[in-house]
Amino acid sequence: MSKRIGILTGGGDAPGLNAVIRAVVLTAGNCYGWEVVGILQGFDGLYHGLPVVPLIETSVRELLARGGTVLGAANRGSPFAHPIQRPDGTIEYEDVSHEAINRMTDLGLDALIVAGGDGTMSIAHKLVRMGARIVGVPKTIDNDLGSTDVTFGFDTAIHTATESLDKLQTTAESHHRVMVLEVMGRDSGWIALHAGVAGGADAILIPEIPFNIDVVCNKIRQIQSAGRHHSLVVVSEGAASIGGKQEFYIKESSQSGARLGGIGHIVGNLLAECVGAEVRVTVLGHVQRGGSPTPHDRWLATQFGSEAVHLVAQEKWGYMVALQGTEMTAITMEDAVKMKFVDPQGQAIRMARDLGIVFG
Amino acid sequence: MSKRIGILTGGGDAPGLNAVIRAVVLTAGNCYGWEVVGILQGFDGLYHGLPVVPLIETSVRELLARGGTVLGAANRGSPFAHPIQRPDGTIEYEDVSHEAINRMTDLGLDALIVAGGDGTMSIAHKLVRMGARIVGVPKTIDNDLGSTDVTFGFDTAIHTATESLDKLQTTAESHHRVMVLEVMGRDSGWIALHAGVAGGADAILIPEIPFNIDVVCNKIRQIQSAGRHHSLVVVSEGAASIGGKQEFYIKESSQSGARLGGIGHIVGNLLAECVGAEVRVTVLGHVQRGGSPTPHDRWLATQFGSEAVHLVAQEKWGYMVALQGTEMTAITMEDAVKMKFVDPQGQAIRMARDLGIVFG
Amino acid sequence: MSKRIGILTGGGDAPGLNAVIRAVVLTAGNCYGWEVVGILQGFDGLYHGLPVVPLIETSVRELLARGGTVLGAANRGSPFAHPIQRPDGTIEYEDVSHEAINRMTDLGLDALIVAGGDGTMSIAHKLVRMGARIVGVPKTIDNDLGSTDVTFGFDTAIHTATESLDKLQTTAESHHRVMVLEVMGRDSGWIALHAGVAGGADAILIPEIPFNIDVVCNKIRQIQSAGRHHSLVVVSEGAASIGGKQEFYIKESSQSGARLGGIGHIVGNLLAECVGAEVRVTVLGHVQRGGSPTPHDRWLATQFGSEAVHLVAQEKWGYMVALQGTEMTAITMEDAVKMKFVDPQGQAIRMARDLGIVFG
Amino acid sequence: MSKRIGILTGGGDAPGLNAVIRAVVLTAGNCYGWEVVGILQGFDGLYHGLPVVPLIETSVRELLARGGTVLGAANRGSPFAHPIQRPDGTIEYEDVSHEAINRMTDLGLDALIVAGGDGTMSIAHKLVRMGARIVGVPKTIDNDLGSTDVTFGFDTAIHTATESLDKLQTTAESHHRVMVLEVMGRDSGWIALHAGVAGGADAILIPEIPFNIDVVCNKIRQIQSAGRHHSLVVVSEGAASIGGKQEFYIKESSQSGARLGGIGHIVGNLLAECVGAEVRVTVLGHVQRGGSPTPHDRWLATQFGSEAVHLVAQEKWGYMVALQGTEMTAITMEDAVKMKFVDPQGQAIRMARDLGIVFG
Repeated sequence: MSKRIGILTGGGDAPGLNAVIRAVVLTAGNCYGWEVVGILQGFDGLYHGLPVVPLIETSVRELLARGGTVLGAANRGSPFAHPIQRPDGTIEYEDVSHEAINRMTDLGLDALIVAGGDGTMSIAHKLVRMGARIVGVPKTIDNDLGSTDVTFGFDTAIHTATESLDKLQTTAESHHRVMVLEVMGRDSGWIALHAGVAGGADAILIPEIPFNIDVVCNKIRQIQSAGRHHSLVVVSEGAASIGGKQEFYIKESSQSGARLGGIGHIVGNLLAECVGAEVRVTVLGHVQRGGSPTPHDRWLATQFGSEAVHLVAQEKWGYMVALQGTEMTAITMEDAVKMKFVDPQGQAIRMARDLGIVFG
Repeated sequence: MSKRIGILTGGGDAPGLNAVIRAVVLTAGNCYGWEVVGILQGFDGLYHGLPVVPLIETSVRELLARGGTVLGAANRGSPFAHPIQRPDGTIEYEDVSHEAINRMTDLGLDALIVAGGDGTMSIAHKLVRMGARIVGVPKTIDNDLGSTDVTFGFDTAIHTATESLDKLQTTAESHHRVMVLEVMGRDSGWIALHAGVAGGADAILIPEIPFNIDVVCNKIRQIQSAGRHHSLVVVSEGAASIGGKQEFYIKESSQSGARLGGIGHIVGNLLAECVGAEVRVTVLGHVQRGGSPTPHDRWLATQFGSEAVHLVAQEKWGYMVALQGTEMTAITMEDAVKMKFVDPQGQAIRMARDLGIVFG
Repeated sequence: MSKRIGILTGGGDAPGLNAVIRAVVLTAGNCYGWEVVGILQGFDGLYHGLPVVPLIETSVRELLARGGTVLGAANRGSPFAHPIQRPDGTIEYEDVSHEAINRMTDLGLDALIVAGGDGTMSIAHKLVRMGARIVGVPKTIDNDLGSTDVTFGFDTAIHTATESLDKLQTTAESHHRVMVLEVMGRDSGWIALHAGVAGGADAILIPEIPFNIDVVCNKIRQIQSAGRHHSLVVVSEGAASIGGKQEFYIKESSQSGARLGGIGHIVGNLLAECVGAEVRVTVLGHVQRGGSPTPHDRWLATQFGSEAVHLVAQEKWGYMVALQGTEMTAITMEDAVKMKFVDPQGQAIRMARDLGIVFG
Repeated sequence: MSKRIGILTGGGDAPGLNAVIRAVVLTAGNCYGWEVVGILQGFDGLYHGLPVVPLIETSVRELLARGGTVLGAANRGSPFAHPIQRPDGTIEYEDVSHEAINRMTDLGLDALIVAGGDGTMSIAHKLVRMGARIVGVPKTIDNDLGSTDVTFGFDTAIHTATESLDKLQTTAESHHRVMVLEVMGRDSGWIALHAGVAGGADAILIPEIPFNIDVVCNKIRQIQSAGRHHSLVVVSEGAASIGGKQEFYIKESSQSGARLGGIGHIVGNLLAECVGAEVRVTVLGHVQRGGSPTPHDRWLATQFGSEAVHLVAQEKWGYMVALQGTEMTAITMEDAVKMKFVDPQGQAIRMARDLGIVFG
């Protein structure tokens, strides 16, 4: 029986989202003869009633290698807490979830595929409990979803961060400098850990292991004593100290309203004080979210998109595709939102410590 | 107890071998205080008694991002079948395995780590049965070792092949051409399959699925009818037809002694006959083996090297490190050499077919 | 006064053509308020009367970084020698240049910008003499146009070729091999020379300097004696020997009809005979034409496209934009087609020889 | 007559310095049979009497593609103003230029090649007037030396910056954001201008053109009205406003001691106020100095290094190599230090404005 399915992308963008969209359209067309329409701007576009975009083979032809999401991800709200500005200027939140569901009916959608992170999956899960026919595709460059071995976008982000470390390394060496690179990862240190190991970092500071700056200082001094006059420190944006001098910096910089001085700069200032070397800080920022996905991420995103269509065929509402080992599987959205953190006692951290990397 | 361990790299090189060497040296030094020496030119260097190279932190400092292997991989023979040229010019094969074992003793090696493919692991396994203390690290860019989910070098090879497809795509489109790319993979189609999916190929020809060229021709004609005037075909070097006209080509080209005319050119000629479009063939060759490893391969190679040292500490002679899911494990070398082929009925091929890709 | 101008791209594609198209559209719109239409498939599309494509800011938004040409370059003929198949199967050539000119009038074109190589400029020059209002933009990845210091696409081609040399270098070193890389350049050796110098080649064979294979063999043996066991040889597709054994190979391979065995493979076979080392050959092929243009080529192509619009404003019919030093200039198409060859006695070759590179 | 020549690298590092060193060693050896020694840490290493490093073919084998400088560039002082700390903690500057000259004699140097920027050339020029035999090689990634069309390192820096813009573009588009990228260029806007044009920027702010933020705001609003909801702004680190609100920010951020808040963040804050869109700022920093040089820079650096040796042979003391058009020339160091700025009325800016780019 022919179907009409919708697809939307929620939350921050990740390299590979367009490859998911392409795989959904190709698989739906080739395997089942189904029609696909794109919902713009995530769930916002759904309940706001933005026009939808018919997606056919020619619309997705060039999406495989393209970063970002052509469906847009500028969405803010949730249908369960839609922000409305009152005449007096205050903001109130309204539950418009029924409108979202009605809109799916109005659009004649037999099913909806949503690609997103834990926020998006929570919303989708609630809508499924209200009767919506939704399957999910996991998306986070942070790789912190517990239910899948890896997510697309992560490999591309690590690629960008490692390339930057490779570049910083040569100039650090020429100038006898300590280079600090702040990378993404508000809650988890996966990007910092993988890029740090792949880029030859001497210290890696991650949210899961509160750091003591003295440990990093000692490591750098020990490297200097051994005759190497440069070092690399990778810092997750969500890294935090276990107390001490660096809190002072954080306080001071927040007083001056400086969103500017993130943890990378704080660590840079602390190191400049304690080691006899110049320190330079780079904050990689949104560059990590962008660019053409790596072949690894294109493959993974394509698998996810294709498998999501089969979940629709199997009417696995409330399920999300996941990768376990080398196999595609499906898990419930409820299980899906559990986050995955770097285990401070786990194999990966032990391996990194064995190489001589310190975690503060 | 302090140890002195050796390391050698056998068989063809793969991006990440130097990262393995670095990880072995760092882990042996940091965790155990062991000394590491490098054996040059694989097992040849061992039984030929080439000088060994002491490896310390400063020797491996720049190896993480470097392609190839600084220990050399120009090795040919096996200690069990060492080629010796007789006065009359004939070649005879001699078993010099006892010399290899004696040499380990002479060098004062408490253990040996060998990084190599199935050939290297077979030799190592036999030496272990003779009493040698060896652990293994799997290495093949072809990803065809059955015992580990993935091997280092594979991701880098796919990266190079996919980049080439991206480049061929733009010129194919401008000129309305069929572009054929021959990639590595004598026995297995992993590189062709992954690069083909990541690079948007229309047809992928692999050793595991004998092809009928008519299926590819029909696919291309169907694409042309739908208004797209270019297409991409990826061919494993080991791909072969199920019979028919292409055998003629293979025979003809082998008569003229032409190592030149590999399967890529044969497929190119066949397609030029059956589709009304210009066909261009690129044989990627050894470019796929080279270059700086991707972050993914640096991480994996580092894990493998580090874990191999722990296997030595545990005296797991005859074992090889392996990756299963996201965990490092160890398997016996005997199990290790089992090859892994693309399953023509498996999930990956099904997914690729769902996208519209034909496999001949 | 408002104008309507056309643009077409002729001959083989080159990275940067799309950036030219974008710059023409933006400059025509922003500076003069002119309308731009794209002619598909070069001059063929003009005299065949293919539909034209209106080009506005939104149509060119994503063209800057995109390889190939969205206007297509699958053109074959010339309006002065249009191939027509007779009923008996023979081909006759007809002069349809008046149709081309009439078509410009029918389309209401006040001027035409053509981006192309020497063939395209010759055609344009003849049409100008018949009264057509045309200005030119030089295009050749081979960099062999005498009238401009450099052409776009050349830097991108060198980038691709040099990256391949970097990759071949690591595997050559690990395996003690001689690596031969055949690059583009049918008549001139610019790509081979620049990529060879940038990629650290030991020998570079170009059309302008007929080679003696013994010189290359001696160089490689000398390198081996000095303790380096690998070497890199770059060969232009148009390179030829000054006589001797290699002619035999060329003859033999042409007998077996082998378009397959280009000069790269011939050189590879000759070297395999004369040096005691394994030789591997890579033919880079169309990969060199493709891909996103480098920043250098995007800048140059943008300058060319923008300046061409100003030439139209100045009614410089029959002129082509050119770069001299860091300045944009204009020269007549008649002067433009003069080719630029590598000077065997010039500064660049002398510099390369000073480094120890041999040219056979 | 055999010579012994020294080489040092001064000032900040630039991709290509190692290629200069390699070209000097190869050319000196191959053409003249001269010996080369490397002086570590610039002029500091000379007058401090650091040990020198003999440089032969094998020492420079892998330098062509390597970023940074193996001779180090951690130098601070000038032999004419060497900082000495007094017992009371104050710093005094001493003229130790005679020691530098004596040291050249002690080392038996017949000549010295210095690669550096305007500071280094000023020092070298003074030493030449005292009788030293020095020739120069220009080095600055900023491309602001007036005497040469282009300097090595510049193309690599633009490459890195343009790649970042490509990446920011996709995420900007998905999220409807304004992306600000701060690039190097304290005194000149060459990097911002070239990367901005190559990366499709909508506004480029450079030191040579004081900006009015309202012009940028208007441009962005105009883009939004035309239906594009993202934009890119490139800012040189040395850009400054012509007055108005942004001074306030500069003042405020300097009060809080925030080296953190460079001009990129200031521009970001100003734009966030005036346009109804999210703004994200990336400060590219030292990543721009690092990495493997592009083929263009390898070629240029190699030409410079090789030509410098010939200048020594011609005893052109006090001269620096330069590129004019496609030719290597030599100019006096006195002329060499004249800086080259972006001409606000020049061809390049006019071209950029023609494309619709605003400069504030």
